[in-house]
Amino acid sequence: MGSRANGVGSSSANGPVDKGVDFANYFCTYAFLYHQKEMLCDRVRMDAYYNAIFQNKHHFQGKTVLDVGTGSGILAIWSAQAGARKVYAVEATKMSEHAQNLVKANNLQDIVEVIEGSMEEVVLPEKVDVIISEWMGYFLLRESMFDSVIFARDHWLKPTGVMYPSHARMWVAPIRSGLVDQKKNDYEGAMDDWYGFIEDTKNYYGVEMSVLTKPFSEEQEKYYLQTSLWNNLHPHQVIGTAAIIKEIDCLTATVNDILQVRSTFSSAISMEHTRFCGFGGWFDVHFRGRREDPAQQEIELTTAPSTNNGTHWGQQVFLLHPPTHVDEGSNLNVSFSMDRSKENHRLMEVDFHVKISQPSGMILPPIKKKFYVE
Amino acid sequence: MGSRANGVGSSSANGPVDKGVDFANYFCTYAFLYHQKEMLCDRVRMDAYYNAIFQNKHHFQGKTVLDVGTGSGILAIWSAQAGARKVYAVEATKMSEHAQNLVKANNLQDIVEVIEGSMEEVVLPEKVDVIISEWMGYFLLRESMFDSVIFARDHWLKPTGVMYPSHARMWVAPIRSGLVDQKKNDYEGAMDDWYGFIEDTKNYYGVEMSVLTKPFSEEQEKYYLQTSLWNNLHPHQVIGTAAIIKEIDCLTATVNDILQVRSTFSSAISMEHTRFCGFGGWFDVHFRGRREDPAQQEIELTTAPSTNNGTHWGQQVFLLHPPTHVDEGSNLNVSFSMDRSKENHRLMEVDFHVKISQPSGMILPPIKKKFYVE
Repeated sequence: MGSRANGVGSSSANGPVDKGVDFANYFCTYAFLYHQKEMLCDRVRMDAYYNAIFQNKHHFQGKTVLDVGTGSGILAIWSAQAGARKVYAVEATKMSEHAQNLVKANNLQDIVEVIEGSMEEVVLPEKVDVIISEWMGYFLLRESMFDSVIFARDHWLKPTGVMYPSHARMWVAPIRSGLVDQKKNDYEGAMDDWYGFIEDTKNYYGVEMSVLTKPFSEEQEKYYLQTSLWNNLHPHQVIGTAAIIKEIDCLTATVNDILQVRSTFSSAISMEHTRFCGFGGWFDVHFRGRREDPAQQEIELTTAPSTNNGTHWGQQVFLLHPPTHVDEGSNLNVSFSMDRSKENHRLMEVDFHVKISQPSGMILPPIKKKFYVE
Repeated sequence: MGSRANGVGSSSANGPVDKGVDFANYFCTYAFLYHQKEMLCDRVRMDAYYNAIFQNKHHFQGKTVLDVGTGSGILAIWSAQAGARKVYAVEATKMSEHAQNLVKANNLQDIVEVIEGSMEEVVLPEKVDVIISEWMGYFLLRESMFDSVIFARDHWLKPTGVMYPSHARMWVAPIRSGLVDQKKNDYEGAMDDWYGFIEDTKNYYGVEMSVLTKPFSEEQEKYYLQTSLWNNLHPHQVIGTAAIIKEIDCLTATVNDILQVRSTFSSAISMEHTRFCGFGGWFDVHFRGRREDPAQQEIELTTAPSTNNGTHWGQQVFLLHPPTHVDEGSNLNVSFSMDRSKENHRLMEVDFHVKISQPSGMILPPIKKKFYVE
């Protein structure tokens, strides 16, 4: 679930997540029906899960299911409609009350049991055949909700059980975007304004504030230039080959596997005379079942740049200023790394290291930049 | 300090404020220089405090001062420049580090001691002659920061000490505003959209969601119609006499005095053929010193609707839909009450009860409405 909530979580580098703070920063947005509706109106998302379930009824008929983070209850309801014997629908927020009403209004209260609580704390009466969850955040891992799905799997999935989705991948591609100019202008406008403010404060109020210029510019730079942006990229904005930077098998991944993402890849520029403005990041998930019990119909949910099939996740855009003029035949050698923020385990810090070689053979000075996924 | 931070605080109806949650919801915005700058750029605010201090140097020369919630340190710096012997500048966020640098850059480190911590926890070496603070939130009491000023006063102000500001008042007046139509349209647009969503979800996904219509409409109604708005009212929008609904003597007020605001008042409509669209609320503070040691120059800081002297506080607007047609000679009898939210002591709940009598003598059915100041 992509969420534009301002803050997202909490963690002490030295200790466990404070639950009250985690709720104030993260969970609380999901208690709003408006937010649930936004996700329920995402047709690409809805179609993918609907088809994954109803075109693979053999995984659900007569089976037990756990829906991690049920929200409004939609996946739990579909699982029941597809023939599940019993569905446990776990939801940490008071949205669980609405899920309960929805279950009743659809006459499924004998099959779907809504449980309010965090996945790490609830106790189920039995292990389940299927764990279904829509846990994906912006750029897949923002919000770190998959941790809770892993916990659920390790505690409540039968050895023969199936994960819905079964696989997830992160993608990165070089892009062009007018945002690179816009954000630079925003930053420079903020600094111009600041210098006027420094002058005025000295002249009118007798206080010399220029010692704050450096931290202010750092704060503004982080906000305008170093924070990844939500954007709905057009496929035409992708200017080179996209690379898979992470692959996750939802049946076997550990939290350790996803604490860090490290990838080195090449990307060949495929567009003539264009500006390399940075990178776009997105994800896809697949519903393949498991080797011993595969899906009859494999379904894909992708959030790649698309003309008609955009999702509420959009893509995450990492802008590199100034843009670099590149051409068909230019090549990027990229090192990517992503770690969780120390202050907030649900947010990320990303590093890009880019070496550009031009068609002429010239190799440009490497570009290194750190970004915050907030 | 007015702050548009989404959440603002926390409280359990049964226990003390959780500090981590309070920080996540409230204090954290004040750690940003961008936010401090917004307040430092408020010329009306800056002029009032500047003049209050420098036109009353007798209160500062050779005296000890406590600045509660020093932020960037501006009031502490001015107090030192006005001749204070020693200034304690207390700030709960990491903004205190910037305040420290500002003090040093203005060569006042021998006078101003910046202390990072909450007012309720810091220990000062001595009691002070003056407590200065800019604690006012939207509509005066939003953020409930005055609690911390009261604490400081009760623990750290000498018996002969002076409060800056010394007095505060809350005002309410009937207004006209196009926002009443805009918000109603926004709400109705959201509901139209919802009904389409219900249809689609039934037709495409086989789930009957109309049981959620009532809670959704309540959520949207609260958001669009029952939450007070920040607005910069023009004086022409005030259509009747303004009333003082609360008066605070900063030297003697207790937290108990400000937990509730109760007021009954009349307002005579002073505009011909207009629409009564609700109420505007604002505040003023005064710097009068104390009876035994008065200001030489009394300064006023008002946030009343103004053509040229608007502040970052704006006013709080409480919209009543549908608007009522009123005329010169119409009269409003108003009961106002304000309490702190149980979930969050820094946010407020307001009730208006309005009886309108028209010039003809006709008395309209009473209007009762609850609002959230968030």
